[in-house]
Amino acid sequence: MPKIVDHEARRNEIVEAFLAVVTRAGMPAATSRATAAELGVGTGALWHYFDGFDDVAAAAYQRISERTNARLAASTAGRRGLDAVHAMLREIYPLEKETVEEAYVVVGFWGRLAANERIGAGKDVAGHWSVLVRDHLVEAVQDGELVPETPVDDVSDVLFAVGMGQQAFAVMRSPLSAPARQLSLIEHCLIPWRTPGFARSHDG
Amino acid sequence: MPKIVDHEARRNEIVEAFLAVVTRAGMPAATSRATAAELGVGTGALWHYFDGFDDVAAAAYQRISERTNARLAASTAGRRGLDAVHAMLREIYPLEKETVEEAYVVVGFWGRLAANERIGAGKDVAGHWSVLVRDHLVEAVQDGELVPETPVDDVSDVLFAVGMGQQAFAVMRSPLSAPARQLSLIEHCLIPWRTPGFARSHDG
Repeated sequence: MPKIVDHEARRNEIVEAFLAVVTRAGMPAATSRATAAELGVGTGALWHYFDGFDDVAAAAYQRISERTNARLAASTAGRRGLDAVHAMLREIYPLEKETVEEAYVVVGFWGRLAANERIGAGKDVAGHWSVLVRDHLVEAVQDGELVPETPVDDVSDVLFAVGMGQQAFAVMRSPLSAPARQLSLIEHCLIPWRTPGFARSHDG
Repeated sequence: MPKIVDHEARRNEIVEAFLAVVTRAGMPAATSRATAAELGVGTGALWHYFDGFDDVAAAAYQRISERTNARLAASTAGRRGLDAVHAMLREIYPLEKETVEEAYVVVGFWGRLAANERIGAGKDVAGHWSVLVRDHLVEAVQDGELVPETPVDDVSDVLFAVGMGQQAFAVMRSPLSAPARQLSLIEHCLIPWRTPGFARSHDG
């Protein structure tokens, strides 16, 4: 069924064009017109592949989730415990240019989700990542980095909720989203559960 | 200058009409058309008072901030320490119908903020509330509810960032936003700093 394959490929090209405009010019510039221009087509051509711009935004959100999943796999390969937790959170929290740009797309999608009930929220990405963080917290307990009584589910949920909050703060340009402050909040969430005197060699 | 007063009054009426539609029918239903219909005017009449729907959304966000400020003042009157902290967070976290509706408006506004650089982020409401929470945490230390070494700035920032994350989770309909889970995260953030054996009479 080559037609279906082409349709998917074209959808992907449109989403990549949207994200290219975001990267180059910022989320406010990434309109349907600019996305179509990036591909050298008229705006109307987009609507053979998407049911409106909410649908493009949902696909871009999905694409960013996949990109982040790939980065998480790469950055945690060969790492465990708190070292892996920090590597993961650095890919999710809006600490650098790439993740700040992603925050704009993600928060923009949340806004569309809030305003349009026809958009499906999609898979529970947050829940999925929270579980990945928790697994590395369990390793940190096994390795003695964290105390045995560490409430790993709660620590993971809080680190995750803070990361979502930071994406909102980044878009609000709140002083709360300064990178040093974000990193200090991660440390704050971990410090009560660190094993006293355990040498920190890997999680810096 | 009665004309200016009328202009402000009319803007307020439009914002209240927008929020009335949100309350009755949900954020997705609160279009410019529905907002105008609520007032019994044509949609075009809105644009004498607002520069487009982003401007209505920004004013609604501002109105919700003011409403929340008023609720915070009322709910913390005569309270201090952790009792006041819990009272505050219950007005901000999306735990009940009213605050969940507000989360939709707030997250919808963040989305517009992400997509439109002409919208001003407005006052740093989050920073302001974080300071209020911190002041009550200081009282909790003074009253012996929390240990003297409690890092009140970080606790307050984390409670706040989690609250913003919870607003996003509410819109995503994530299992993370179940009220019991939200309350348990608040407790999780406080528990490392609670004075052992201190009787919890006020903060339930």
